[in-house]
Amino acid sequence: MKKTLLLNSVLSELIASLGHGDMVVIGDAGLPIPPETRRIDLALCRGIPPLLETVRVIASEMQVEKALIATETGQRSPHIRDGLGQLLPNTPFEEVSHEQLKALCRQARAVVRTGEYTPYANVILVAGVVF
Amino acid sequence: MKKTLLLNSVLSELIASLGHGDMVVIGDAGLPIPPETRRIDLALCRGIPPLLETVRVIASEMQVEKALIATETGQRSPHIRDGLGQLLPNTPFEEVSHEQLKALCRQARAVVRTGEYTPYANVILVAGVVF
Amino acid sequence: MKKTLLLNSVLSELIASLGHGDMVVIGDAGLPIPPETRRIDLALCRGIPPLLETVRVIASEMQVEKALIATETGQRSPHIRDGLGQLLPNTPFEEVSHEQLKALCRQARAVVRTGEYTPYANVILVAGVVF
Amino acid sequence: MKKTLLLNSVLSELIASLGHGDMVVIGDAGLPIPPETRRIDLALCRGIPPLLETVRVIASEMQVEKALIATETGQRSPHIRDGLGQLLPNTPFEEVSHEQLKALCRQARAVVRTGEYTPYANVILVAGVVF
Amino acid sequence: MKKTLLLNSVLSELIASLGHGDMVVIGDAGLPIPPETRRIDLALCRGIPPLLETVRVIASEMQVEKALIATETGQRSPHIRDGLGQLLPNTPFEEVSHEQLKALCRQARAVVRTGEYTPYANVILVAGVVF
Amino acid sequence: MKKTLLLNSVLSELIASLGHGDMVVIGDAGLPIPPETRRIDLALCRGIPPLLETVRVIASEMQVEKALIATETGQRSPHIRDGLGQLLPNTPFEEVSHEQLKALCRQARAVVRTGEYTPYANVILVAGVVF
Amino acid sequence: MKKTLLLNSVLSELIASLGHGDMVVIGDAGLPIPPETRRIDLALCRGIPPLLETVRVIASEMQVEKALIATETGQRSPHIRDGLGQLLPNTPFEEVSHEQLKALCRQARAVVRTGEYTPYANVILVAGVVF
Amino acid sequence: MKKTLLLNSVLSELIASLGHGDMVVIGDAGLPIPPETRRIDLALCRGIPPLLETVRVIASEMQVEKALIATETGQRSPHIRDGLGQLLPNTPFEEVSHEQLKALCRQARAVVRTGEYTPYANVILVAGVVF
Amino acid sequence: MKKTLLLNSVLSELIASLGHGDMVVIGDAGLPIPPETRRIDLALCRGIPPLLETVRVIASEMQVEKALIATETGQRSPHIRDGLGQLLPNTPFEEVSHEQLKALCRQARAVVRTGEYTPYANVILVAGVVF
Amino acid sequence: MKKTLLLNSVLSELIASLGHGDMVVIGDAGLPIPPETRRIDLALCRGIPPLLETVRVIASEMQVEKALIATETGQRSPHIRDGLGQLLPNTPFEEVSHEQLKALCRQARAVVRTGEYTPYANVILVAGVVF
Repeated sequence: MKKTLLLNSVLSELIASLGHGDMVVIGDAGLPIPPETRRIDLALCRGIPPLLETVRVIASEMQVEKALIATETGQRSPHIRDGLGQLLPNTPFEEVSHEQLKALCRQARAVVRTGEYTPYANVILVAGVVF
Repeated sequence: MKKTLLLNSVLSELIASLGHGDMVVIGDAGLPIPPETRRIDLALCRGIPPLLETVRVIASEMQVEKALIATETGQRSPHIRDGLGQLLPNTPFEEVSHEQLKALCRQARAVVRTGEYTPYANVILVAGVVF
Repeated sequence: MKKTLLLNSVLSELIASLGHGDMVVIGDAGLPIPPETRRIDLALCRGIPPLLETVRVIASEMQVEKALIATETGQRSPHIRDGLGQLLPNTPFEEVSHEQLKALCRQARAVVRTGEYTPYANVILVAGVVF
Repeated sequence: MKKTLLLNSVLSELIASLGHGDMVVIGDAGLPIPPETRRIDLALCRGIPPLLETVRVIASEMQVEKALIATETGQRSPHIRDGLGQLLPNTPFEEVSHEQLKALCRQARAVVRTGEYTPYANVILVAGVVF
Repeated sequence: MKKTLLLNSVLSELIASLGHGDMVVIGDAGLPIPPETRRIDLALCRGIPPLLETVRVIASEMQVEKALIATETGQRSPHIRDGLGQLLPNTPFEEVSHEQLKALCRQARAVVRTGEYTPYANVILVAGVVF
Repeated sequence: MKKTLLLNSVLSELIASLGHGDMVVIGDAGLPIPPETRRIDLALCRGIPPLLETVRVIASEMQVEKALIATETGQRSPHIRDGLGQLLPNTPFEEVSHEQLKALCRQARAVVRTGEYTPYANVILVAGVVF
Repeated sequence: MKKTLLLNSVLSELIASLGHGDMVVIGDAGLPIPPETRRIDLALCRGIPPLLETVRVIASEMQVEKALIATETGQRSPHIRDGLGQLLPNTPFEEVSHEQLKALCRQARAVVRTGEYTPYANVILVAGVVF
Repeated sequence: MKKTLLLNSVLSELIASLGHGDMVVIGDAGLPIPPETRRIDLALCRGIPPLLETVRVIASEMQVEKALIATETGQRSPHIRDGLGQLLPNTPFEEVSHEQLKALCRQARAVVRTGEYTPYANVILVAGVVF
Repeated sequence: MKKTLLLNSVLSELIASLGHGDMVVIGDAGLPIPPETRRIDLALCRGIPPLLETVRVIASEMQVEKALIATETGQRSPHIRDGLGQLLPNTPFEEVSHEQLKALCRQARAVVRTGEYTPYANVILVAGVVF
Repeated sequence: MKKTLLLNSVLSELIASLGHGDMVVIGDAGLPIPPETRRIDLALCRGIPPLLETVRVIASEMQVEKALIATETGQRSPHIRDGLGQLLPNTPFEEVSHEQLKALCRQARAVVRTGEYTPYANVILVAGVVF
């Protein structure tokens, strides 16, 4: 089996296929996923897996250049915004409106659905390059 | 979104397509999955999702007639065997050898991979009928 | 087998994949389904399954935020409109024209065809979120 | 739309592709369907659609030469056996064991799943020729 | 086998999937079929099957609300126009130009190719509803 | 369009892909077609297209080395056997039992379904080589 | 095997699926083929098969109403233009620019690649009807 | 475009995917190709492309360890056997019966169909390794 | 096995399917690849395979008419620009901006991902014709 | 982009899907790959990528329980055997015959083709579990 932190085979393939600027959305259990966007459904039940843990695991293999969150996330669910900031301490965050974030899902390489039951608990990771 | 306990779309389809006697394997992160068997990879990282929680959620929608575990599970990981017994108190358990359990995976409708990091933490749920 | 109210495997997968704002159309036996929209044909014969029963079963698993019906439904088939209102007592209903409702089918995640033989017996359920 | 009794598009295609001796299984909600056999899931919820009604509709387009039921059907659910006899008054019935019937599903062209909640409510229709 | 007039499995599926306003084109052996439109090629050789017979058989299962023919059909092949009128005595006919009719093929659910060797022997059947 | 006798695109591809000894079955409307064999459904309705006409058209492009018919064909439908003999005057015919002929369908490259309503109206054409 | 001039199975299917006005491009070994257009690669090596021979064979089954060639073909490779004229003596030829011809490839039903090593050795055959 | 001798894209992919001992069949226009074997149909018409030319071009990229021909090839078409020998002067040839050669087609990676009109003009090239 | 310089089966197919003006992108390990463009991932790890070596091997089979590089390549990674010039001494180079080069990826036939860890180490090869 | 040693997206997915006992073959450029086994072709040209480097990169993510090599590898290419031993110092090696190793490829999850030009430079890695 794979011996590093991230176990999931679909996420492993996704991350290894990202290039500079490609976007991956990690969303709560209710985020609508555009039909044309790749859907990776990891949600088992309320809270499993949690959003922050999913971001932590993805960030262990993915070079993240920038993160996008909705302004509403900080207003309504500040512990999510703060938790993301702690997980990605050297990553610049940009705020967009929740509507913009949903529109960006159409351009993302995939949306990862977690079991998170927190309003506006969504983040877009933008891939960077290690050289 | 779905408002019941089980959120996952792939598991939801699987359970709704089971008939009397069909088998679903829920396995630890290292269980080999035969290429001809459907693979549902929910493993994120070590311990997420846990085996017992995954069984609990699946059993909330699936009528379980019988469960099969390996003799080695009780010997090496008794808390898994005991936890399964508590989750499915009215379900008869049958023991097979670990080799037999791996062979039965070929006949299963799917193998669900969890993030469980416990030796021999695998179980086969056999579907029953509610009438 | 699945032990909850909704048995159908295709509907089970559909509902578990809905996000906030996604639309599901439940239609009579003659509603045209755009070729690009997913088609779930449950119609057996005249009246089987009925529209209202199909809505009742879908609503047992789907969080419904809002329902859309055609103005013509209330005018031509008021028992359908009233039946929908009783099935979804806490759900706001919005009226659109029948032409608008047919146009919205292109954006829906799926159209479920019933055996209903009643003019304008169609409804769009809009998914909500439970948190 | 189609103007005859049978509305379903998948069943319509199936029946029009049958040749002499081809088998169609119509089963209750819990009949296991072999993975290699075509699955037509019409089950909505308990009792919808009923087995007998589904058989009646299929028989309106399909030339039936013979029907196979399990011996257990007559023993445990005699109203199903009798109902089938009334729907197909000129069709010879053969009895097999329930195990044999399940084995024959592997050779069938399709298994149609109904919402019937009656034990052993399954029948195999064998196609005949009209000339 | 199927015991009603229409035998073809592909046409059976097509008709059973039509909704109000969906179009089916039945064309002569030389009608160009847009690549994005479903192609049902029944043409064997010159005259087999004939256009009128194909329309007669399709209309035995399809509720036809309206028929569209090219103006050129009446001018160049009046026996086709008259034959269609006799097959569908209660159906309103609308005339479009041959160019318009070819453009409408892009929106049709399918084009059925016959072996008809008559200029402008094409018709579009528009589906109606029986309730 | 194609300007030779045989118009059908699927048959045209089939014949052009045959090698020495490959078999094509042309059958009546009720011949069972094994699921693993390619199905070419030309049947429109009773008698369209006729078996003999279909054979005549196929033989206009296909080099036929030998034909196989069931013994029952000559006994029950001698006009079919005689018609085949006239269409293929220089082709040797071999008789097999109807059961053998049905078994050979599994090895055929395709089964062509006609609208023929005559018992035992089936023939297997075996491809030859022109050099 | 097929006993007429044209042997290729892919070309046979293509020609039998053409309708009035459909275009087939036959090109030299270097003609760019738009990704969305069907590609039929017959090129073996320099000169095999030759363009003119390929056109001759295709025209043995295809009713050609019109041919399009680039103005550059006559200027740079007059023996190709003349050869085409001799192969299709009763077919009107239209000249377009090489750029226009390449743009028309996007609308063609297929591009047939030959082994021709002659500049501007390309032609578009436009299908006609035989009745 | 590709600038080496072999132009064909399908053959180029095939040869680059061969390993030690893999077989490629190059056959005349009438060789039967098992349905489970990959079919590469290069045949345009009688004699195009010729068998020997096709072998020459394939051998320009493929390391050939051994060639298999039917005993009948030397008996009935000695110029083919001799031509093969001249094209592959350092390659050992083995003779098998024509029946054996046809059976070996089932194990081959592909059968390449040429336009050769010569009896028993078939050869199997067995891939070698360059190190 | 293939005995020429380029071994890869996917690249072999790609090059043999190029026509005049078709573009192939060879990029560093981080170049974003548009989802609609064919992806050929050869990257193993940092530096394997190197960009220049990959270009050298591709150019051994591909006729290159022109090469496009970003202005930034010469500014930031001049050894890559110089190396490309030495590999393709008779090929004209054109400079575009890095943004333009990324936009051109959408029109390319494929993007080949190498393991190159050098900023702006990307090149587009434009196919030419050998006659 | 991915920021760990192994860049390749296909290998990343493969390794993350391995279970206890699953086999991955890493082979030289000429190893025959059974058609039913997944093929991952990384070979660019002679020596790129090298076998040992490919094993080193795969082993950075894959838990290896055991390695299988051919007896011939040690006899004919001892530096490969020794290099493998140094890369996997704590992994037990088992020797099989080259014929057995080729037969085991049929049971492997994938064969990775490298550019290695060394006789018998093949190894099978058998997956272990980290808990």
